[in-house]
Amino acid sequence: MRKHKREIKSREEVEEVLAAARVMRLALSVDDRPYVVPLNFGYNAGAIYFHCAKEGRKLDMIRLNPQVSFEVESDVAIIEADAPCGWTTHFRSVIGFGKAVTVEDEAEKLRGMDVLMAHHGAAKGEYDKHNFDHAAIVRVDIEEMTGKKYLG
Amino acid sequence: MRKHKREIKSREEVEEVLAAARVMRLALSVDDRPYVVPLNFGYNAGAIYFHCAKEGRKLDMIRLNPQVSFEVESDVAIIEADAPCGWTTHFRSVIGFGKAVTVEDEAEKLRGMDVLMAHHGAAKGEYDKHNFDHAAIVRVDIEEMTGKKYLG
Repeated sequence: MRKHKREIKSREEVEEVLAAARVMRLALSVDDRPYVVPLNFGYNAGAIYFHCAKEGRKLDMIRLNPQVSFEVESDVAIIEADAPCGWTTHFRSVIGFGKAVTVEDEAEKLRGMDVLMAHHGAAKGEYDKHNFDHAAIVRVDIEEMTGKKYLG
Repeated sequence: MRKHKREIKSREEVEEVLAAARVMRLALSVDDRPYVVPLNFGYNAGAIYFHCAKEGRKLDMIRLNPQVSFEVESDVAIIEADAPCGWTTHFRSVIGFGKAVTVEDEAEKLRGMDVLMAHHGAAKGEYDKHNFDHAAIVRVDIEEMTGKKYLG
């Protein structure tokens, strides 16, 4: 049951985990009722971008409280171990805090979409105009983040 | 960018996702500052169990606000797709809400530990006495949960 975890000390390695992760879990809270949801995202220079429906729970909550927390994982591996359960999970994770802002400026919205697409291996501008027009882009300005390596 | 997601309608399938998932992301919130963290967990009959340090951020937050949200995923698969990015991720996820209670009763603590260990393929009682004595067991009484299938 004991977890051997170590802090990731370099900003570079923390950013490496963010770059490798495919899914982010975003936690929002209104009236101290938290809500956690998985999202695709992109990361660039201290900011996270994600897209969502223009009307929905996420934007409603962000409007009421922009404070968010996020978590990503990379390099997940199931390892045989001398543990009670015979196996263990190794992974690196990053947990952070920040403020979410709905991007209103059209040019920044395009840049945000590019960051999001680049994160998933697509070239800039390679997205459907219809989807783009119907999606909101949210930027999370990261205030703090820390990484951990779980080694069994 | 468009996600094809479908609600999972049966309670059985929602519980199947919970049973198959290895990691839960738990969101806590105090003063509307959310905090999301990955955890190992066990699920049994409407309740989630996890263990954590007897002193630390999680228990401190739960004492101040027991309301939590959680998210788990199962059956993650990367699929080649006719999408802008050339691939997509399929998975099933469950998002829920509940109240976290630190288990004080020694017998229930043992049962919670058994649920947690069984979830990870270990037999009942197969854990280190030292670890058991030094861990807190938290039960999340689930108030609501919904499942989704992401199909591209």
